[in-house]
Amino acid sequence: MKRLETLSALAHQNDKKILIWVFDGIGGLPHPDTGKTELECANTPNIDAFVQKSMTGRTMAFGRGITPGSGPGHLALFGYPNDQIVIGRGVLEVLGSSKVLKDGKPVEGFTLSKGDVAARGNFATEQIVDGTAVITDRRAGKPATEVSGALIKMLSENVKIDGVEIFLLPGKQHRFSVVFRGEGLVGDVIETDPQVTGLPKLACEANRPEAARAAEVINAFVEQVTTLLADQEQARTVLLRGIAGRPDVPTLPELYGLRCGAIAAYPMYRGIANLLGFDVLGQPSNHREEIETLKANYDKYDLFYFHIKETDSVSHLGQFDEKVKIFEACDSLFQEALDLGFDAVIITGDHCTPCVLKEHSWHPIPTAFWHKDCLFDDTPKLTERGCARGILGTIPARDMVPLALAATGQLLKYGA
Amino acid sequence: MKRLETLSALAHQNDKKILIWVFDGIGGLPHPDTGKTELECANTPNIDAFVQKSMTGRTMAFGRGITPGSGPGHLALFGYPNDQIVIGRGVLEVLGSSKVLKDGKPVEGFTLSKGDVAARGNFATEQIVDGTAVITDRRAGKPATEVSGALIKMLSENVKIDGVEIFLLPGKQHRFSVVFRGEGLVGDVIETDPQVTGLPKLACEANRPEAARAAEVINAFVEQVTTLLADQEQARTVLLRGIAGRPDVPTLPELYGLRCGAIAAYPMYRGIANLLGFDVLGQPSNHREEIETLKANYDKYDLFYFHIKETDSVSHLGQFDEKVKIFEACDSLFQEALDLGFDAVIITGDHCTPCVLKEHSWHPIPTAFWHKDCLFDDTPKLTERGCARGILGTIPARDMVPLALAATGQLLKYGA
Repeated sequence: MKRLETLSALAHQNDKKILIWVFDGIGGLPHPDTGKTELECANTPNIDAFVQKSMTGRTMAFGRGITPGSGPGHLALFGYPNDQIVIGRGVLEVLGSSKVLKDGKPVEGFTLSKGDVAARGNFATEQIVDGTAVITDRRAGKPATEVSGALIKMLSENVKIDGVEIFLLPGKQHRFSVVFRGEGLVGDVIETDPQVTGLPKLACEANRPEAARAAEVINAFVEQVTTLLADQEQARTVLLRGIAGRPDVPTLPELYGLRCGAIAAYPMYRGIANLLGFDVLGQPSNHREEIETLKANYDKYDLFYFHIKETDSVSHLGQFDEKVKIFEACDSLFQEALDLGFDAVIITGDHCTPCVLKEHSWHPIPTAFWHKDCLFDDTPKLTERGCARGILGTIPARDMVPLALAATGQLLKYGA
Repeated sequence: MKRLETLSALAHQNDKKILIWVFDGIGGLPHPDTGKTELECANTPNIDAFVQKSMTGRTMAFGRGITPGSGPGHLALFGYPNDQIVIGRGVLEVLGSSKVLKDGKPVEGFTLSKGDVAARGNFATEQIVDGTAVITDRRAGKPATEVSGALIKMLSENVKIDGVEIFLLPGKQHRFSVVFRGEGLVGDVIETDPQVTGLPKLACEANRPEAARAAEVINAFVEQVTTLLADQEQARTVLLRGIAGRPDVPTLPELYGLRCGAIAAYPMYRGIANLLGFDVLGQPSNHREEIETLKANYDKYDLFYFHIKETDSVSHLGQFDEKVKIFEACDSLFQEALDLGFDAVIITGDHCTPCVLKEHSWHPIPTAFWHKDCLFDDTPKLTERGCARGILGTIPARDMVPLALAATGQLLKYGA
């Protein structure tokens, strides 16, 4: 965090505007038939023209060989040390959902507040052995998602703890998430999952005195839930893991004095952006609406995050040609964004998702960076191989925000 | 500093000679009309030929996106960790000047000694409110430089503190610098500037017991100065900031056993070199005299620092063509230096100063490194884009001195 302090001390905001355009899962690998990657196959004349006047390179969200999740990927994208800041799994899950329930009813646009404590949960089964309830299946036989969803609704209608709001989010099969909101909750507590069967579930305990109230609330929750599940065939109790509060990180506005606007259709990305101090703009549900949201808000913000999810979604399904088409479909939209007149523009990703792998990968992320007076290179097109030889080099992703600030004159000189 | 200790432990001096040739503000950016940088435009056949047998790359004085001042830039150039060593502003100012006064008279070739305490000062105005003197203008209405210069001369003639030598340096408008020299002075004290008007100036206090004498001296100085200014219209007192001693760093001779000679025309660079253990050679006032100084001293030193200031000076004025001409004018001088027979030669800068920006910039510094048996690459010319693809890579500037030592057989193997 020392680095963020140094950067923050040098920050000197002006009226320049920066766009970070993120193709989620941008980078790919050669198709076995052609040897060409998704980006190499895409016909994207506008992006090509942009790249030809940019400095190109590749970014790494974490160390070489490490495949980042979306949390670490986005922390790096926005300049944060993702080795020091961890977004808890429970936190990420609730950020990722529009299906949060409170008192049995859906909550519109749930966001995590400071002081909230979030956890990932499993339904589990237990039975009495020698007078003690021990866990017999940590996943309750992986119930159908509809079954566990109905249980979550029932629990949401019935669990009550004085002075605490409880938000529940159904997940796949045995999984769910829970958020506790109330005075004096600090998420620094132990998990209740004993990790093996044949042992009792653990009582939640505070790791430090300030977390005592959170431990008490979690134990009350588990007790009530266990009582409410007493006559259920499928699940008799719950185990909680990854218990954590909203990460206590300085926001981008706090660090750099920037007004930050996020444009993303998917809840998790909207949530992460919100955590880091972006205003999350509009309710766009497709790329056209995303671009219109950008245009409508151009005057009001200094730094924009523009997120395209579909490149990642189709990559997870291995749909090579679909990914190519999404790059092509976004090409003219990108030009519409450029035409707004930004002073610095980055095209990048939060990680790679090669179609041949169908999952996130460890590969460096193709990146193009343009600004006024940019030392452009001769990379002709945004591709994995082209960017690997670009003069930006292969650099930590967390350096891109500082570079964009520097390139727009928003970082003072260090030392006399 | 751990890294310096490791390097120092491995150092094994021989009779090899190293030249670090610094073009201050070396790197540039594309001219808007041609797309070519200053270095790309310069006709420098001798430097080109040198580069063609060198390994090329780029160095970074600090993190990506961070623009280094001359202090951090030179610390990195000479292998020092500039995130851990800071040269105080007052120290840099006095190093930068040939106009230091003592007892009202100019001091020839002032250098900072160990134990000296230096500070940056402002003239200020104050008035009595409810029996207390409070600051009314922290810059004393920005007096004309001639006015403040005359006040500095008057103060230099009159302020006397037993056992302490006082050196004063006039600055622009309300600014000046002061150095206290005497037994037992430790510069670890608080500033006297309250930073806002309407408050009294602060009494200087020691941050640790050893600094008590320095605080006492500074308070006595401020009191005398305030008395001496009592009948002045323009300024009634002074505020001191950036109070610090000469940085307590191991010198290059101490670290590596090298005899180090510095050739620079400008006082600040002579001063920084002196701080780090270089003998500052001659009094050259132009490039020809610098080269003659190098030749005259070639036999006496192992590591030479050769500083060309003008590339930076004209860049600050945005004089693109002038910068090109300076590179061209230095081309044959550089060959004269090469002809002396050095065993390792680095051409680099302390930072970039692109003419299109007219100020220091964050860009990596084009660098060429030659030594016997060098793994030369195919970079044809010393340019920003060429060096970006050189096989030295884009590396921390502080690694260049260790590389030069290694390349001349002056670092032992680490571990068995």
